[in-house]
Amino acid sequence: MSARTKYAVGVDIGGSNIKIGMVSQGGKIIYKHSIKTEPGEGPQKVIENINTGIHAVLNNTKVHIDGIGIGCPGTVDPEKGTVENPPNLHGWRKVNLSRTISMEFEKDVFLENDANAAAVGELIFGNGKKINSFILVTLGTGVGGGIVINRKLYRGEFGAAGEVGHITINYNGPQCKCGSYGCIEAYAGNQYLKERVRNELKNHPNSLLLKLIGYDFSLISPRKIQEAADKGDEFANFVIVDLGTKLGAAFASLSNVLDVSTYIIGGGVAGFGKPLFDSIKKSLTSRVMAPLKPRVKILSAKLKNDAGVKGASALVFHGY
Amino acid sequence: MSARTKYAVGVDIGGSNIKIGMVSQGGKIIYKHSIKTEPGEGPQKVIENINTGIHAVLNNTKVHIDGIGIGCPGTVDPEKGTVENPPNLHGWRKVNLSRTISMEFEKDVFLENDANAAAVGELIFGNGKKINSFILVTLGTGVGGGIVINRKLYRGEFGAAGEVGHITINYNGPQCKCGSYGCIEAYAGNQYLKERVRNELKNHPNSLLLKLIGYDFSLISPRKIQEAADKGDEFANFVIVDLGTKLGAAFASLSNVLDVSTYIIGGGVAGFGKPLFDSIKKSLTSRVMAPLKPRVKILSAKLKNDAGVKGASALVFHGY
Repeated sequence: MSARTKYAVGVDIGGSNIKIGMVSQGGKIIYKHSIKTEPGEGPQKVIENINTGIHAVLNNTKVHIDGIGIGCPGTVDPEKGTVENPPNLHGWRKVNLSRTISMEFEKDVFLENDANAAAVGELIFGNGKKINSFILVTLGTGVGGGIVINRKLYRGEFGAAGEVGHITINYNGPQCKCGSYGCIEAYAGNQYLKERVRNELKNHPNSLLLKLIGYDFSLISPRKIQEAADKGDEFANFVIVDLGTKLGAAFASLSNVLDVSTYIIGGGVAGFGKPLFDSIKKSLTSRVMAPLKPRVKILSAKLKNDAGVKGASALVFHGY
Repeated sequence: MSARTKYAVGVDIGGSNIKIGMVSQGGKIIYKHSIKTEPGEGPQKVIENINTGIHAVLNNTKVHIDGIGIGCPGTVDPEKGTVENPPNLHGWRKVNLSRTISMEFEKDVFLENDANAAAVGELIFGNGKKINSFILVTLGTGVGGGIVINRKLYRGEFGAAGEVGHITINYNGPQCKCGSYGCIEAYAGNQYLKERVRNELKNHPNSLLLKLIGYDFSLISPRKIQEAADKGDEFANFVIVDLGTKLGAAFASLSNVLDVSTYIIGGGVAGFGKPLFDSIKKSLTSRVMAPLKPRVKILSAKLKNDAGVKGASALVFHGY
């Protein structure tokens, strides 16, 4: 470990586990640790667990760190260092996470919501390294987003920017768990997608997907859909292409407003790979304003495993 | 005219007329001039007309100016000073307007597309004076937009940002003249709105609107719709409320992404006034993410007549 290499601790707060890693400036995790979140025990206990985890990583590496980066669900105010109403963490309302952790370790703490941290991860370590402006979209249970403009995270007035999942594609569409209707998340979120496939499978009795799940609808998953599509199943392929068409419609609104036309796609559903990316590109290119059409680019996220920890540590190297 | 008052020339390039004004730092027009655009004669002639107009204003005022601001339709690159494919101006493709005008008058030239200039006008002289971040939306033939974030115009990667009219509210909706489907402009643009009213009026034979237009469908206009609504006509009122509901859906996508929740509405259709603004507010508040709900504000633009000239001059006072 050269004296010149810089290090940062990255903390990824999930609903089940907190993952903590010591990450080098080059994006290598030299040590990592995982600890239960215990979200039901309230903020005090979760913070205790975060501290325990960070201490474990520091004690096992003994390197000087430039700071601690934290990616957290919920509405984050990065300047004040507060987290508000994180879903899956109970009894939080508004907690000043930065100050508490900063006092424990006497280090600068950089806090962002998890999608923003993922965007900074791609910017510093991933496929955004050479791209000035892009939108990171994570396709998972929800559809999250982080906006990078001229190599800076775009946070909005109060740090709540980048809610890509809640772009409406049909104002009369199905209700989304945010309360609105026809948000892209209400089509592309994992649960919504599975439910739709479950309903439509009934009309496709010959789909290979049925065999792959052993006719057990609870086993429908992005991975199974992808497997069926890879084997040439028409219905599974339609599901993926249709998903891309809808994502492209949401991204067109975004690109027309932001004048940004590069998307980096991560998360589980991004596993659909080339067929999904091709479909997004086709839909987005056909819908976006003329000057933007030639600039549309759909890339896959480079950070896969440990994207959360790496993204969180990238916040430190990125600075404010 | 005190020696301390600053002045700027504002140039508003329209499809029929070019309006030029000498505007004080306080937003007062001390002299104005209008000249035919002659858009069919090509860029050379239009630029000649702009120059003639500016000379006329300078000769009639004899004040020192800080610069010349120009608002122009089309895709503008403010840094390079170019205008690309302005609709209604023939044979332009890409013209370096800033350099040409700057050489003629040996003054700094600040060029923006007209919606962005209108946003800066509200920021410097209008209802945005005390608001850090807002979105200016002009409701007219098209639906234009300008985004102000922390008192700076948001231009995007290549100056094409703020195309609020081309936010999709229904990916399967009516085709928009941009080529996409279900853009808010394809519902709220003047032509689309009039056509829709024309079609639906047939089902409302008792609407007061029919009497107000003397049963001549070519006379349908925002003003007539407003007049009917003011007099209690149910159908006309429905048209306005429905328009607000749809605009609110488009704005929800925008607010969720940008974390900006103040809208300043200008343009002819904004004449619908309070019933429209109330409907936008109701729809936007019901659809936007929870943390933004209490912050939603819908204001009317302060600059009405001469908004183009004032907005253009404001570019000079705003600087880059």
